[in-house]
Amino acid sequence: MDQEVYDVLIIGSGIAGLTAALYSARQGLKTIIVSADLGGQLVMAPEIQNFPGFESIRGYELIQRVEAQVRAYDVEVVYDEIQELSRQGEYFVAKGLSSEYRAFTVVLACGKAPKELGVPGEKELRGKGVSYCVVCDAPLFKGRTVALVGWGHHGWESVNTLAGYARKVYWVFPSAEPYDDEEAVRSLLSRGVVELVPRAQLVAVKGSKRVEALVVRNRDTDEEREIQLDGVFIEIGYEPKTGFLKGFVNLNDKGEVVVDREGRTSMPGVFAAGDVTDMPYKQAVIAAGMGSIAALSAYKYLMEVRGKKVAVLSDWRHGKR
Amino acid sequence: MDQEVYDVLIIGSGIAGLTAALYSARQGLKTIIVSADLGGQLVMAPEIQNFPGFESIRGYELIQRVEAQVRAYDVEVVYDEIQELSRQGEYFVAKGLSSEYRAFTVVLACGKAPKELGVPGEKELRGKGVSYCVVCDAPLFKGRTVALVGWGHHGWESVNTLAGYARKVYWVFPSAEPYDDEEAVRSLLSRGVVELVPRAQLVAVKGSKRVEALVVRNRDTDEEREIQLDGVFIEIGYEPKTGFLKGFVNLNDKGEVVVDREGRTSMPGVFAAGDVTDMPYKQAVIAAGMGSIAALSAYKYLMEVRGKKVAVLSDWRHGKR
Repeated sequence: MDQEVYDVLIIGSGIAGLTAALYSARQGLKTIIVSADLGGQLVMAPEIQNFPGFESIRGYELIQRVEAQVRAYDVEVVYDEIQELSRQGEYFVAKGLSSEYRAFTVVLACGKAPKELGVPGEKELRGKGVSYCVVCDAPLFKGRTVALVGWGHHGWESVNTLAGYARKVYWVFPSAEPYDDEEAVRSLLSRGVVELVPRAQLVAVKGSKRVEALVVRNRDTDEEREIQLDGVFIEIGYEPKTGFLKGFVNLNDKGEVVVDREGRTSMPGVFAAGDVTDMPYKQAVIAAGMGSIAALSAYKYLMEVRGKKVAVLSDWRHGKR
Repeated sequence: MDQEVYDVLIIGSGIAGLTAALYSARQGLKTIIVSADLGGQLVMAPEIQNFPGFESIRGYELIQRVEAQVRAYDVEVVYDEIQELSRQGEYFVAKGLSSEYRAFTVVLACGKAPKELGVPGEKELRGKGVSYCVVCDAPLFKGRTVALVGWGHHGWESVNTLAGYARKVYWVFPSAEPYDDEEAVRSLLSRGVVELVPRAQLVAVKGSKRVEALVVRNRDTDEEREIQLDGVFIEIGYEPKTGFLKGFVNLNDKGEVVVDREGRTSMPGVFAAGDVTDMPYKQAVIAAGMGSIAALSAYKYLMEVRGKKVAVLSDWRHGKR
């Protein structure tokens, strides 16, 4: 167990968490990032054109650049999944799967994670044919048979990508039509690789060591069908993974952490930034700005608790600290 | 007079305004930037190390990169200084020195401008020896005699920079000591280039075509002194230039535009971002995030006014629109 008490514990390592770490470390605060993975949702973005400074950049490359920037400072980065957060006296304790972390302030930047279907076999076969990221994993299924669960423009894009690799793609969706751009759907079907599975309800993912089949039920006829395949891609959106925060900080009805303009949650000393918050716009540059704000608010909070003046905060010049 | 009505008029072209333009244009909104200069305060930053994605970048280069990114879209950029903003029926009218601009929404991103001393000769000799930016103009005074009006760490940095070029630097400040790091001041004085002018009150800048002298009064003795020199650098902070907004949107006691978390001002349809707002932290990445937020809020406002649904706003994926 780590007995050290950090100034700032940042949970999550997407662009919000990394930017918070950059600012926290530059303020001279003892900083640790604890995250289950590195880079958050951005690593899955094939191309970003709306992050100021880059006309076009792969999400993974942007994250790598910011990570290198953070690593230039004395920031500890630990891979662990936080299960519980509590206040104990003057500091917070975060319990992870492999260790426990103590800090005087916390920045929640754990973002969103792909929504799961919640059907039997899904969890067990994750990474063994069940994927939540077409952009990441499509190339692994060259010449194989896969299904894409999803709809709308994003579903269409995903199927289109998969069709470039797979021998056959089942497009599985709950309504009668997968996407209201009929021409786009027609053009996709004309490639002869895609089969539509409309009005589908997912029943189970089957397989012993790897995915072998997908069971779907027709919502109108209740008829079940078992589709033999090698991979199931689930792209039905994202949700914040904030179960461990329930009762600790205020969450909205979507499970997002409620923050004010300065990144403060309902718990003094706990701040939040990026997609995990109830900020309605989810964008990389907004998450980065919020990460900076959360770190500066944590700094201000620490200085106030420690009885130091922070009058300079509002008058910093860019790049001067 | 320009009779066209834009969807979004952005006042200011710093990182906040440029990022707002990027997002506004990418939403398909007819966008115009009106600004007195290009780039805002960032162009004066010699080095930025805390903008995510760049371990180190000159402020000017960052702005150039974002400007190029904006120019790839159909955004009009006009150099003009807005004097008045008003609502006329369903749109806003902004009166500039050279033209008039109409738009259904406005994003205020006019940042801050250097504080002036307000002494005779200062305005008249601006750009003729009076400068508000050591980083920009110090090299122009190689081998000449200059004064720096300022204090603290920033004042010290400015004098230090000037001492690398000028033959002599008068460091002019109102208190008894210019900077509480005495060792740093001693080391600077040991170079033999700098003369301290403590307890100084500025009386006037003198010169016919260019700066010729600076008149200062001693706060204790009331004695006046005329210092012969070639340049006067004034680095006493920044303030928002929001005089033209008084009575139009709520300002705080610093003259900053009051905004909520989504960049909304007290006037529906008018949004604000960056250093001109009452967000207490002034940082480039925060201004960029706020620019994105203001543009998305303008988009949402326009869609609501026009009776269109904007349900997708909160679920955009990075780089997908």
